[in-house]
Amino acid sequence: MPAQNFRVGLVFEEVSVMTRIAIDAMGGDHAPREIVKGAIWAALDYNIPIELVGKEDEIKKELDKIQKTGIKSMRGGYFSHNIKVNLSELDIKITHADEVIEMGEAVGQAIRKKRKSSIVLAVDAVAQGSSDAVVAAGSTGAAMASSLFGLGRLKGIERPAICVTLPAMKHPICLIDAGANSSSTPEMLCQFAIMGSTFVKNVFNRPNPTVGILNIGEEAGKGNELVQTAHKMLQELKEGGQINFIGNVEGKEVFHGDCDVVVCDGFVGNVALKIVEGSSLMLFEMIKEEFNSNIISKIIGILAKPFMKRIYKRINYEEFGGALLLGVKGITVIAHGRSTAYAIKNAVRVAKEAVETGVNKKIAEFFQ
Amino acid sequence: MPAQNFRVGLVFEEVSVMTRIAIDAMGGDHAPREIVKGAIWAALDYNIPIELVGKEDEIKKELDKIQKTGIKSMRGGYFSHNIKVNLSELDIKITHADEVIEMGEAVGQAIRKKRKSSIVLAVDAVAQGSSDAVVAAGSTGAAMASSLFGLGRLKGIERPAICVTLPAMKHPICLIDAGANSSSTPEMLCQFAIMGSTFVKNVFNRPNPTVGILNIGEEAGKGNELVQTAHKMLQELKEGGQINFIGNVEGKEVFHGDCDVVVCDGFVGNVALKIVEGSSLMLFEMIKEEFNSNIISKIIGILAKPFMKRIYKRINYEEFGGALLLGVKGITVIAHGRSTAYAIKNAVRVAKEAVETGVNKKIAEFFQ
Repeated sequence: MPAQNFRVGLVFEEVSVMTRIAIDAMGGDHAPREIVKGAIWAALDYNIPIELVGKEDEIKKELDKIQKTGIKSMRGGYFSHNIKVNLSELDIKITHADEVIEMGEAVGQAIRKKRKSSIVLAVDAVAQGSSDAVVAAGSTGAAMASSLFGLGRLKGIERPAICVTLPAMKHPICLIDAGANSSSTPEMLCQFAIMGSTFVKNVFNRPNPTVGILNIGEEAGKGNELVQTAHKMLQELKEGGQINFIGNVEGKEVFHGDCDVVVCDGFVGNVALKIVEGSSLMLFEMIKEEFNSNIISKIIGILAKPFMKRIYKRINYEEFGGALLLGVKGITVIAHGRSTAYAIKNAVRVAKEAVETGVNKKIAEFFQ
Repeated sequence: MPAQNFRVGLVFEEVSVMTRIAIDAMGGDHAPREIVKGAIWAALDYNIPIELVGKEDEIKKELDKIQKTGIKSMRGGYFSHNIKVNLSELDIKITHADEVIEMGEAVGQAIRKKRKSSIVLAVDAVAQGSSDAVVAAGSTGAAMASSLFGLGRLKGIERPAICVTLPAMKHPICLIDAGANSSSTPEMLCQFAIMGSTFVKNVFNRPNPTVGILNIGEEAGKGNELVQTAHKMLQELKEGGQINFIGNVEGKEVFHGDCDVVVCDGFVGNVALKIVEGSSLMLFEMIKEEFNSNIISKIIGILAKPFMKRIYKRINYEEFGGALLLGVKGITVIAHGRSTAYAIKNAVRVAKEAVETGVNKKIAEFFQ
């Protein structure tokens, strides 16, 4: 693999410049305001350079506001922050982008037509080497497609996959693929397993992470053809000492945290992720409803609020920041469409950690 | 369709005998104790005859205990009940079964070899007409296989499906297939849609229920080949006025309750169901942990307990009793393996409602 195609690893190991993160300032439900705020917050908190990609005038307007009033932000719908900022002390680069790819646009067409869109140029910043990773909260499809075309696949990887960090009782775990591919082959599942395992080993710093396949029963031979074949292939990888495969994992066990890497097809993973989000929101809604039912319940609700806050913090997507697109020659972090400044700040942290731990280089090494 | 093959509908409409429910007394983690207790509780509460199928001596031992001490039971891990029972006032039939199909046994083989097992004989009771429905908390595979072989498929149905009732903000909804089939065709998904729609219309008494397909995006054209093809076919059924198809439903929307029938492949449905169970359990674990962290939190926890109980009751699987296996010529209710007496009591209620609303007859009518 030629060195220029693998800048991420090189930056970390050979060049001692600081990691710069490019952020698509125009992507997400609350863009550009929350995105710019989150990026500045990250630059401040992690002491790193950033590159804001989007409509220059809009970005500058947001920066002016931040300079004047600081960063006011919500976190978990609860805590508000007010942080004073002196922008002249930060290393902020602005890259102008004329266009924006909107949610729901046909991705393939949009990527080809809007060559000057914020997401395409943000990925380009990584491809050209002005930044080391990209954070995007807009269309997931657009972020994936522009990363795939703009950065290229890692050698040996058939298809990139979305690696998402989930809260669990023991410690956070990773689910891969969370929706990059709507149908997969057993070979792809094996690659997801290796990428996820490499991620957990390096970013979470857990040696020999356990890898399981998301299935509808514990016994081998359970499930559809895809997972049955993948099970056999993963067993072989285990016997070859390449991954710590522990067999099938059922949905109800995922949140114990005993399985570090939960491997699945992107369709199944995306459904699972979103249905968990939906059911958790319902639970919190119900808790609110019950505590709001009368005056006494309201008082008890106020007393219980700090505990609810702590739980919300433990499972809140904002804390996890974003999901990594693994398998491309560069780091792309896909943040939630609803991302607040706080979520973006954490997404930048995820990108920074991925760059600094050289996860891509380790994946490439495996396939060499 | 010959009348003798369709006793369920006939019982309700033409013969005025009471619905009798057969219960596999040996199936489930807490069998026979909780199963027998739940069955007696149901007989008492719903004033219906029951047929207990299993090892006669063990069943009689449990009945003796109930006669002496009444039904002591837990509910949602919280409430304990103590109900006095005079068994001589109830209509209880015992059918002896020599064998039990254990969890994890290879189903096909077990069904053929253990012809005198409790689940096979319980289904047989429905096939022979001594009971009108069967409730089973043991091996789901064994319950499905014995129902399929013992009762046969409804005309026009390719494969039976598990129809599970889920709590949602607005009102409970149904998810079908929750795991009867580990791979499906688009035609099967259409049949699931019709069965689920018929179930909601008749059992939940909601005219014109909305039907959606579980997918990874809202727009048509999203998802894998299976759901894309099924989407087109369901659209045609809608245009023919046969179902109220509303398109794709994402996991996060399932619990709003706007979509009455959520259709999916059994692999996806089973993963979704179990991962929701897992994440909800984690949330309740976290709530417990937070309230147990110090003396003040413990006091607030005690104050908040009634509210938590109410929420737990709203989402507790025990309240929903069990899932219906739809598409076979008879009613089979599959209860949770962990079923307590309270869950079994509610599973019997589900069976009774399914018989009395003639849901199978309505499905058969559709396909005629």
